[in-house]
Amino acid sequence: MTYIEKAKKNQDDKVLSYISYREGMDLKKLRNGLKKGTIVVPKNKNREIKKPCGIGRGLTTKVNVNIGTSPDSFNIQKEIQKLELSVRLGADAIMDLSVGPDLNRIRSEVLKNCPIPIGTVPVYEAAMMADDIKSIKEKDIIDVVLKQAKEGIDFFTIHAGVTRETIKVLKKAKRTIDIVSRGGAILARWMQENNKENPFYARFDEILDIAKEYDITLSLGDGMRPGSILDATDGPQIHELKVLGQLQKRALSKNVQSMIEGPGHVPLDQIKKNMQLEKKYCNGAPFYVLGPLVTDVGCGYDHITSAIGGAFAAWHGADFLCYVTPSEHLALPDIEDVRNGLIASKIAAHAADIAKGNKRAIERDRAMSKARRNRDWRTQFSLSFDQFKAEEYRKRSKPKNEDVCTMCSRYCPIKITEGKE
Amino acid sequence: MTYIEKAKKNQDDKVLSYISYREGMDLKKLRNGLKKGTIVVPKNKNREIKKPCGIGRGLTTKVNVNIGTSPDSFNIQKEIQKLELSVRLGADAIMDLSVGPDLNRIRSEVLKNCPIPIGTVPVYEAAMMADDIKSIKEKDIIDVVLKQAKEGIDFFTIHAGVTRETIKVLKKAKRTIDIVSRGGAILARWMQENNKENPFYARFDEILDIAKEYDITLSLGDGMRPGSILDATDGPQIHELKVLGQLQKRALSKNVQSMIEGPGHVPLDQIKKNMQLEKKYCNGAPFYVLGPLVTDVGCGYDHITSAIGGAFAAWHGADFLCYVTPSEHLALPDIEDVRNGLIASKIAAHAADIAKGNKRAIERDRAMSKARRNRDWRTQFSLSFDQFKAEEYRKRSKPKNEDVCTMCSRYCPIKITEGKE
Repeated sequence: MTYIEKAKKNQDDKVLSYISYREGMDLKKLRNGLKKGTIVVPKNKNREIKKPCGIGRGLTTKVNVNIGTSPDSFNIQKEIQKLELSVRLGADAIMDLSVGPDLNRIRSEVLKNCPIPIGTVPVYEAAMMADDIKSIKEKDIIDVVLKQAKEGIDFFTIHAGVTRETIKVLKKAKRTIDIVSRGGAILARWMQENNKENPFYARFDEILDIAKEYDITLSLGDGMRPGSILDATDGPQIHELKVLGQLQKRALSKNVQSMIEGPGHVPLDQIKKNMQLEKKYCNGAPFYVLGPLVTDVGCGYDHITSAIGGAFAAWHGADFLCYVTPSEHLALPDIEDVRNGLIASKIAAHAADIAKGNKRAIERDRAMSKARRNRDWRTQFSLSFDQFKAEEYRKRSKPKNEDVCTMCSRYCPIKITEGKE
Repeated sequence: MTYIEKAKKNQDDKVLSYISYREGMDLKKLRNGLKKGTIVVPKNKNREIKKPCGIGRGLTTKVNVNIGTSPDSFNIQKEIQKLELSVRLGADAIMDLSVGPDLNRIRSEVLKNCPIPIGTVPVYEAAMMADDIKSIKEKDIIDVVLKQAKEGIDFFTIHAGVTRETIKVLKKAKRTIDIVSRGGAILARWMQENNKENPFYARFDEILDIAKEYDITLSLGDGMRPGSILDATDGPQIHELKVLGQLQKRALSKNVQSMIEGPGHVPLDQIKKNMQLEKKYCNGAPFYVLGPLVTDVGCGYDHITSAIGGAFAAWHGADFLCYVTPSEHLALPDIEDVRNGLIASKIAAHAADIAKGNKRAIERDRAMSKARRNRDWRTQFSLSFDQFKAEEYRKRSKPKNEDVCTMCSRYCPIKITEGKE
C-alpha cells in the first residue's frame, strides 16, 4: 500500500506517527493531506529512513540538498562528505544529480549512507547509457526508473510536462534563455531529433505503476523553469505548470504521491503570484522550488539571491526549497559551498515558518533572544543553524571580558541598559 | 544654503545634476523630493565627495557599510582597508561607528580616504570623553556635534526619539530584550541616572542650527529598534517612530534634511506594515533600516537573514539599507565579513529595485542573462557585484571545455537546447 492508501484506510503507520509527532500535526490532518494530495511522504516502501519527513500544506518548510558528480568533477568520496555534512546540518532530503562516470557506484554509496529521503532524475542515467541524446532508448528510460525504484530511491524528478505542445509554446515565447533544466533540455532535444512525444508523458501510466508499487513520490519536474527573471511567469512556464497539474490529478487518482517543481529565476514582485498559480493549477499539491532567484546578477552569491526568493516563496505557499549554492552558474559546488547553500535555505525556510505563525519556530527565536539578553553564549551556539560557524566567530575574536562581544565591548547596549558597565 | 533651500530656489547645482543623471530622475522631480523631505542628499557643504548620492522615494535603494573600532579591536589600518574594499564593491555610504581609542585619528583617516558620504554617531565621542555614562556632559554632546560638523561629516545619527516618555512606554512593554541600540542605551542610561530629558530631544533646535549651517543630514536614530522578532512593531518602537516623525517635520520646516532609522529584527509578515507606518508617521521621509533580520537564530549568517528582510523592506518603501555582516551578534567584522555583508545588501537592494520596476536594474539582469546564454564568462564576471569572487569560482573549477562550467559539463542544458553537444 502507498501512504495515500494507508491514509484512506486510517491504517496505523510508524512513519506517519513520527511525522505527526515531529511536526505537532494531528494524525487525522496529516492523513487528510495525504488523501487530498496536499502532503507527500517521500519514502520508498523498500527503504528504511532514520529521519523521514512530510512535505506540504501545514507542515514546516523542508530543504533539499543536491549532490552529485559531473563529467569534469567526479570524486565520489567528496560527494559522500557533502551528504554527511548536509545531514548533520539538518537537510531534510538529498538529491543525487550525478552525471559523471560511475553513476551506479555513487548511487549505491548514497543509499548506504543516507538517513533522509533520496531523490534522483532517472533520465540522466538513461542519457549516459546512450552514445548521444538522440539515441536514448525509450525502453531504457522505463528500465532505469524501475531499476532505481527497486534500489530504494524515494522520489523521482520526472520531466513529463515537456510535451510537444509545450515546446511549441516555448518556440513562440522568444525567451532570453530557452531551457536551463538539464532534464528538460535532454528530453526536448530527444523529442525534436526523434520527432516523438516525451516518453515520460506518453508512458506516464507505466511510470505511475512503478511509482505505485514502490510508493515513490513523483516530483513533476519543470523543464520550462525560467533561467532569467525576464522569462519568469511566461507562456511556456505556465503552460507546463497546467500540464503538471493534470498529471498530478492522474497520479492522485492512482494513489501515487506527487509534488510539483517550480522556478527558477523570478523577481520578488512575481513570487506570490507564482505560488498562487501553482496551488490553483496543481490542486494544492506540494510545491518544490529551486530558488527562486530574485536577480540574475548574483554570481558567487546565488545562495543569497535564492534565500531571499525562497523565504518569500515559502511564506506564500512553497513547501520544499531546493538549496542553491554560491557556486551556482559557475561550478560544481565544493563542501564549503554546500554548507553555505544549505544554511541559507534553512534560514529562508525558518523565516517563512515564523511568518506563517509556526509556534515551534517562534519559540526557537524566543529562546535565542533570551540567551542573547543573558550573554549565554553556549545556548546561543546550540540554537544556531551552524553551531560550528558561530563558535568559530567567537573564538576568532575574543573580548577581554567574557560577558560581551568585540563588536561593542564595554559599550554593550544590553549591559548598559541593565545598569552595568 | 542647504539642498532643500537650493531646491526651493531651483538653483543649479553640480551634485544635484550628477544625481539626476546617475539615477535617470528628472531634476524637477529630484528637487520636489528634497522640498517635500522624501529625498535627502547627505553631503556636508564643506566636503567634496567624488561619488555623492541621493536617498529616498523614486531613487534606487542605497547601501551603507558600518566600519569602526571597538575597545577590544582597534586596528585603524584594518578599518581603512574595510573602507577601501567597500568603496570598490559599490557601497553608497560609510558610517564610522568607532568606540575604540583614538577616535579622532580614525575619523580623520576616514575623511581623508572616503569618496562617498560619511556618517557618525556623535554621542559615542561624547561618551568616550566622560569617565562613565552618568557624567557625560550635555555641553560635550553639542560640542562634539559642532566639531564633527566642521570636520565635514555628512550625516549624523541622533537618537532624539529616546525621550522620557519613550522610556515609560518601554518599561510597560516587557520586551524580550529592552534596548539593543548602542546610542539608545547610552542615552536611556544617562537620562535615568541624571533624571533629565534626552539632550538631543531637549536641545533639538541647537542640533538643527548646526545641521543647517553645514547642510548635514540628520539620521533620526531608533534607540527602540527591536532586537528580537518577538519585540517587533511593539509599543516602544511605534511610540518612538511617531516622535521621530514630529522631529522630521521640525527639521524640514528649518530646511534641514533628515531621514528615519528603522528596525532591526522583524518577521517577514510584519515588514510591509513597518514600512507603511514609517511613511505614514514620518511624512514620507527616507527610511534607513538595519536589516530587518527576519529571524533571531541566524548566528554566523546574519548577512543572509538581513538580506531577506532588506529586499522585502526596500521593495515596500525602505530607501537605504544598512548592511549586516555574518559576524553580527558575535564579533567585530573582519574584511571578509565586510565583503559578504556588503554584497548581500547590494543584492537585496537590487532585487528590490527590480521589483519596483527600475529599468536600469532590469537591463543589468537582461545583459547578464544574454551573457549566460552565450557562455560569455568575461561579461558575466563584469556584471557581477563581486567580479573577483565570481572569477575565483571559475578558476577553482576549470572544465575541460571552456564553453561550459563544471556543474553540467557536456550536459549543459543551454548547449543541448542549441543542438550542440
